[in-house]
Amino acid sequence: MSFSLGPNQYGKAGVRLVTVDGPVVTDLTIASALSGDLAATHLTGDNSAVLATDTQKNTMYAFAREYGVGSPEAFGVLLGKHFLSSEIHRAQLTIEQHRWEQFGPHSFRRSGGETRLARVVVTADSVAVSSGLSGLTVLNTTASEFHGFPRDEYTTLPETTDRMLATSVDAWWDHSDPSLDWDAAFSDARGALLTAFSSTYSYSLQQTLFSMGSYLLAQCPSVGEVRLSLPNKHHNLVDLTPFGLDNPNQVYVAPTEPFGLIQGTVRRDGATYTEGPALW
Amino acid sequence: MSFSLGPNQYGKAGVRLVTVDGPVVTDLTIASALSGDLAATHLTGDNSAVLATDTQKNTMYAFAREYGVGSPEAFGVLLGKHFLSSEIHRAQLTIEQHRWEQFGPHSFRRSGGETRLARVVVTADSVAVSSGLSGLTVLNTTASEFHGFPRDEYTTLPETTDRMLATSVDAWWDHSDPSLDWDAAFSDARGALLTAFSSTYSYSLQQTLFSMGSYLLAQCPSVGEVRLSLPNKHHNLVDLTPFGLDNPNQVYVAPTEPFGLIQGTVRRDGATYTEGPALW
Amino acid sequence: MSFSLGPNQYGKAGVRLVTVDGPVVTDLTIASALSGDLAATHLTGDNSAVLATDTQKNTMYAFAREYGVGSPEAFGVLLGKHFLSSEIHRAQLTIEQHRWEQFGPHSFRRSGGETRLARVVVTADSVAVSSGLSGLTVLNTTASEFHGFPRDEYTTLPETTDRMLATSVDAWWDHSDPSLDWDAAFSDARGALLTAFSSTYSYSLQQTLFSMGSYLLAQCPSVGEVRLSLPNKHHNLVDLTPFGLDNPNQVYVAPTEPFGLIQGTVRRDGATYTEGPALW
Amino acid sequence: MSFSLGPNQYGKAGVRLVTVDGPVVTDLTIASALSGDLAATHLTGDNSAVLATDTQKNTMYAFAREYGVGSPEAFGVLLGKHFLSSEIHRAQLTIEQHRWEQFGPHSFRRSGGETRLARVVVTADSVAVSSGLSGLTVLNTTASEFHGFPRDEYTTLPETTDRMLATSVDAWWDHSDPSLDWDAAFSDARGALLTAFSSTYSYSLQQTLFSMGSYLLAQCPSVGEVRLSLPNKHHNLVDLTPFGLDNPNQVYVAPTEPFGLIQGTVRRDGATYTEGPALW
Repeated sequence: MSFSLGPNQYGKAGVRLVTVDGPVVTDLTIASALSGDLAATHLTGDNSAVLATDTQKNTMYAFAREYGVGSPEAFGVLLGKHFLSSEIHRAQLTIEQHRWEQFGPHSFRRSGGETRLARVVVTADSVAVSSGLSGLTVLNTTASEFHGFPRDEYTTLPETTDRMLATSVDAWWDHSDPSLDWDAAFSDARGALLTAFSSTYSYSLQQTLFSMGSYLLAQCPSVGEVRLSLPNKHHNLVDLTPFGLDNPNQVYVAPTEPFGLIQGTVRRDGATYTEGPALW
Repeated sequence: MSFSLGPNQYGKAGVRLVTVDGPVVTDLTIASALSGDLAATHLTGDNSAVLATDTQKNTMYAFAREYGVGSPEAFGVLLGKHFLSSEIHRAQLTIEQHRWEQFGPHSFRRSGGETRLARVVVTADSVAVSSGLSGLTVLNTTASEFHGFPRDEYTTLPETTDRMLATSVDAWWDHSDPSLDWDAAFSDARGALLTAFSSTYSYSLQQTLFSMGSYLLAQCPSVGEVRLSLPNKHHNLVDLTPFGLDNPNQVYVAPTEPFGLIQGTVRRDGATYTEGPALW
Repeated sequence: MSFSLGPNQYGKAGVRLVTVDGPVVTDLTIASALSGDLAATHLTGDNSAVLATDTQKNTMYAFAREYGVGSPEAFGVLLGKHFLSSEIHRAQLTIEQHRWEQFGPHSFRRSGGETRLARVVVTADSVAVSSGLSGLTVLNTTASEFHGFPRDEYTTLPETTDRMLATSVDAWWDHSDPSLDWDAAFSDARGALLTAFSSTYSYSLQQTLFSMGSYLLAQCPSVGEVRLSLPNKHHNLVDLTPFGLDNPNQVYVAPTEPFGLIQGTVRRDGATYTEGPALW
Repeated sequence: MSFSLGPNQYGKAGVRLVTVDGPVVTDLTIASALSGDLAATHLTGDNSAVLATDTQKNTMYAFAREYGVGSPEAFGVLLGKHFLSSEIHRAQLTIEQHRWEQFGPHSFRRSGGETRLARVVVTADSVAVSSGLSGLTVLNTTASEFHGFPRDEYTTLPETTDRMLATSVDAWWDHSDPSLDWDAAFSDARGALLTAFSSTYSYSLQQTLFSMGSYLLAQCPSVGEVRLSLPNKHHNLVDLTPFGLDNPNQVYVAPTEPFGLIQGTVRRDGATYTEGPALW
């Protein structure tokens, strides 16, 4: 009885590549899949034809800097042609593109995924209304610094005076008035969060949080308190120096985890309201 | 040693309520949570104070017909006041609203969740490019019928001449030309899918599928084949007659499952192209 | 220019079927996909060959009662042969089976998905430790009743003296002692939750909740308070009478939503502890 | 009108820490949350009290090496006490533990998440049965090497003669016999996959794949073909040298993405069967 190798392929999947080119943010998740003369690695573990999946990933980041991404179709053709070799006879690139829309000079909002929230608590003698949202994902490509933090024996993070700042806003705000034009009130509050995110020059995500909360309070007179939970969705600049390339804030990796998580409350002094849903 | 009951609440969560009111589609997921004099059911299973969570759900659907939903905040206040009783002293309603945007006389598109797709296969002597999208969720509030299907001993579905039709489009289309303005080509194809969905008077989702595929081919000369996978995301009219209410296509439940799943291919006769990713 | 229909299929997906046969719980998610002479519905909306996907779903539930499920492979063959007709030439059934393990005379635990939790809060003069778990899914096939609840104009739920009771346990419990054999303590607490769920004859899920909490306190002397969040994961008996079949607690549908949600706290009288993470 | 800062906290969430200590694999997802005198960073962006979340993460990995993880409760207490300072007055650690069970000398299986699969295709004159599984997650702590792969200008991956190898098995296998004891057949096939994964000394995941497929064919005479899709779930050894620590294959980070993806087919020579569901 004997067994033989049938169709097979291998590659790197889940490669998170974000590029910034002036007013264009391009956000891709890429999977490569190569096939060809690959029986040896399956049968004996001889890897002489197996271009490492790590190398495939490196190539994606390097090409993003060297050639730009353009459209996902064109970037796939570029990468596919490069991966062909005497042993690799077929290169397949599958690319997902996640859309972002610009809403400020260096500010972008990811399309979709946003949910409007409301919570009401009624008792015999009270009505407490809170409004909120979740999943509003935004980024600033610049106007964010982070330095001056304490350094101990476990600190390796360099200080920076120019970083990308991205977060997915979860927020609840509590109304002192149980009877409003709720759709207009929601629109005002959401607009205030976006405006403050976009216009705050940030030295910490905490500072951005306080700015967003206080601007919402300033714009929405019925609101007594805002609670915000802001994951710091790190976009790390890729080190391209091993490939002889610089990276002037153009090519980023956006890992799922870990992420910073900044949570805070901003209150209107002297306001009367009932605190709504906890965010943490 | 003795134990006592601390804070508690109960209710119905995950209630999927969709209403149609002329040009407005409102899509909510509601959770109620009631508390009060509820020690008896915890300690002895005496349910005389426990308004069934099923009743809470029924009330949400009935009130949607009687009073309309309006904003989630206002609907929460309305429900909360109703649930108070001699035993229920606190009623909490938490409501998520999912946004839809109108794009045709009776056609709506759910905001967000949509991903653009590209797949490229390169070999020594060929380049095959496919484009696609996933998660484009659309509905028509009318202009959809379903009847004339065979009836056997297991058939209970009534025939209908006016139903809501909703789906989440997953599609791939294969180009015969490996070098295009890809962003423009994607925009044309996506637009064709939306236009055909909106303008087809439908007797079956299969018919809508073929219409979408053939219209995309008509609008996009570089495309040789379209594959579509269209879940029939059922929006079932809620039976409100137990509550003395009619339901003239206004109040729907939108369950996660089960769902119909319609999958098909539309080809341009005589075209040359390489077939791209399988959808099923 | 003309377009033609290529490969296509249609069916019902996400059919959630749970059967109970003595000591065996079988939990399936089924998708059917039929193909054959189906051009007419695509081209003109003529549905005379389109066995409704609703009928396909009904057949799955009826066959589960008439023939039993046995293995997913055998059930697929049985259904596939039935669906063939003069127009349907190919029937495909894809079935996922979710595993349950018996841990009491009528009690079952779903394999996997369970996470152990710990939360610690340290200040200059205190250490507060809470332990917990999430995603422990259990069901009792009997020994659960629900009746005696108030009936108002929106109540349609019948009373029952024998229902399936299923939940997915989320729990936190707070320790009064910050220094224990934590692995043993966790094992004791988890065991207590399972034992109490299995051995409680239930008149309401609230009663089961209080029983689980108080038994955990009885078994775990270091614990001062337990908080439990128990979704009532409804398993609804399928009405098979349209098909001339009874259903003596054998064939259930297990929808994702809506679900009851029962949340409560049980405290040891006189205990000293710091309250840990909120569950709601 | 003035606004003030209410309750707030910050930290690092989603920290994926896996440790190996002889026969014990400990798999944690950790979130820290610190609070104290943090008004300055919110109001002016002064970060002098803000221990970077990156530092918090580094500390988790370093402490895992220095002190071991033990139980999540104990590890939380250890970390919490460390994070207190003159400005940080409260340190909260929330830890999820994912369970693994040993099934070979250096082989572990993650509890839960596994689904059994079946697909049947019936036509007028044929019955084709395929069985499968998804989500069977396994790892070998040693007995895996990877070297000898080609190096080009984009290659930075070092060669290794001892790495952790982890994957989540998705598999389909096609039967030549449409009538078997399916439960026994499934058990045999699953057992063969586990045995081969555990007992193969691996020079590439492709080699492990071929070994798993051919051993399944050897043990299951009814099977004609196996298709396997094996993500290479990287467990990267953490570089602890900045903290003066070595890391003798003890402390790993397990990122969600990117991941290698190895897909292949193994066939029994001369067998007759109908090919089942595509895996890619």
